Amino acid sequence: MEYIEQYQRYAALIEATLNTILPEGKMLCPPEGEMPGKLSEAMRYSLLAGGKRVRPVLLLAVCDMLKGNIEEALVPAAALEMIHTYSLIHDDLPGMDNDDYRRGRLTNHKVFGEGFAILAGDGLLNYAYECMLSNALRFKDHLEGHIRAAEAVAKRAGVSGMIAGQCVDLLSEHHDPDADTLFYIHTHKTADLLTAPLMAASYIAGATEQQRTALERFGACVGVAFQIDDDLLDVEGNAGEMGKATGMDAQHGKMTWPALVGIEAAKARSNLLWQQAKEALDCFGEDARFLQAFADALAKRKK
Amino acid sequence: MEYIEQYQRYAALIEATLNTILPEGKMLCPPEGEMPGKLSEAMRYSLLAGGKRVRPVLLLAVCDMLKGNIEEALVPAAALEMIHTYSLIHDDLPGMDNDDYRRGRLTNHKVFGEGFAILAGDGLLNYAYECMLSNALRFKDHLEGHIRAAEAVAKRAGVSGMIAGQCVDLLSEHHDPDADTLFYIHTHKTADLLTAPLMAASYIAGATEQQRTALERFGACVGVAFQIDDDLLDVEGNAGEMGKATGMDAQHGKMTWPALVGIEAAKARSNLLWQQAKEALDCFGEDARFLQAFADALAKRKK
Repeated sequence: MEYIEQYQRYAALIEATLNTILPEGKMLCPPEGEMPGKLSEAMRYSLLAGGKRVRPVLLLAVCDMLKGNIEEALVPAAALEMIHTYSLIHDDLPGMDNDDYRRGRLTNHKVFGEGFAILAGDGLLNYAYECMLSNALRFKDHLEGHIRAAEAVAKRAGVSGMIAGQCVDLLSEHHDPDADTLFYIHTHKTADLLTAPLMAASYIAGATEQQRTALERFGACVGVAFQIDDDLLDVEGNAGEMGKATGMDAQHGKMTWPALVGIEAAKARSNLLWQQAKEALDCFGEDARFLQAFADALAKRKK
Repeated sequence: MEYIEQYQRYAALIEATLNTILPEGKMLCPPEGEMPGKLSEAMRYSLLAGGKRVRPVLLLAVCDMLKGNIEEALVPAAALEMIHTYSLIHDDLPGMDNDDYRRGRLTNHKVFGEGFAILAGDGLLNYAYECMLSNALRFKDHLEGHIRAAEAVAKRAGVSGMIAGQCVDLLSEHHDPDADTLFYIHTHKTADLLTAPLMAASYIAGATEQQRTALERFGACVGVAFQIDDDLLDVEGNAGEMGKATGMDAQHGKMTWPALVGIEAAKARSNLLWQQAKEALDCFGEDARFLQAFADALAKRKK
């Protein structure tokens, strides 16, 4: 199957799973086990806003590559998208980046108010774990693999992962950039949540240690390259194509790779990382066709 | 052992566990697996602010009562306190209740700023699951019980539990109170997170269905009574004793039981619920001594 068709097939599975596990609610005070209408509306507004589904697609693709049961991986994949979405909702809040637009639409707090945006974000984060735990109990024969997968997600999304990166990012605003801090921010703020689906899939599908190490290396390279490209697009892109305001990094005094080494050196660094990402997949041979194409496609984002 | 000594013994175990799993961090960009100093400082500020530890104490007490291994329950108990604390940090934010004081100290965002308070809350929530998952893998012989415990916590803390209650609470501000909505808010905003430790302990210690049902009933009564008392204290208490501003419910237009039925009827309702809570424990006989004393002690809070 062609790369694009395969990507669309994965994305459609994720869309369907998200719609199933987070249905529209209608009542203010719903029956036991359901969520209030306004809460599901706020969560769905950001979750079903047409994201690229990069993280869950990675999880399904790696599960497929390792000959795992994709049925078992659907909910963990959806959970990763929920975690990614919660982080965007909270990032956009006035107390954080104070952004009005995201994926071409008003940000969550602009539509539902700050209080609801905080709760919608909290809700998505908590629900991600609730769903992964229930899913693990549904596939009890592989309980330990599922719990190792959920733990890998928690570590990379958490206080020594993505949240650590966001904190250092916040603390580094309006400071002169240095390479160590920048590498820490990119590794944790961005790469960790791209490595999370690879690790989760490796546990769900029962990968070898060698395969897991290769996937981790792939994720680390892709993640940092992805963030450098994001920083480049913020400098060189235009708001219409990006679906959000550009030039925001400079305005917020963010530490970025272009600010540290200049635009050309940042592009060279990104190119090298994309190449290293693809080399990390060598041990999978032909089976890694989809991941190779995925890296090529993502690398093309930058101008 | 006397009730108060026993409570202090449990509380000391929880304090020690919290300090172990969330140590002080010192570096801006720490080594792999550690958290940035400022993040742990913000999380510890609220987590170690001398709370009563009601929820984790309940978890340990029920585990003890059911002859479970308390060693296995320490981290889930600490995780519940992290979830409770994150909900307070986010509740106090300007976009939510906008409170300046909590437990007699400045609220998290007043000390660390809004961005950090959002991240510290997110961090505590995510870390609660990270710790429960790692703990489950540590006690692999009881893996399924631990995962059922974590799932029970997730359900009651989440979008059909505590967060659902917070949403309906927010949506009901400045509306005329009605009994159904009020019951929904109290059940979910407050009772669910008091039932969570009971359910978690029941799975960790391997309770019977009958025992679990009794504990669930106990939690539902305690939780609603606890919230009615909180509402009464907000009307009748004084800020010095409470460690936070009083009279805030009226100021925020909150739906409360005293506002619906008056102070005396609210007190009668609370008294009845405390009595029903204690009756729910009948099936445990003498083993429920601690829980009975716990209910008596909490019931005395209100004026």
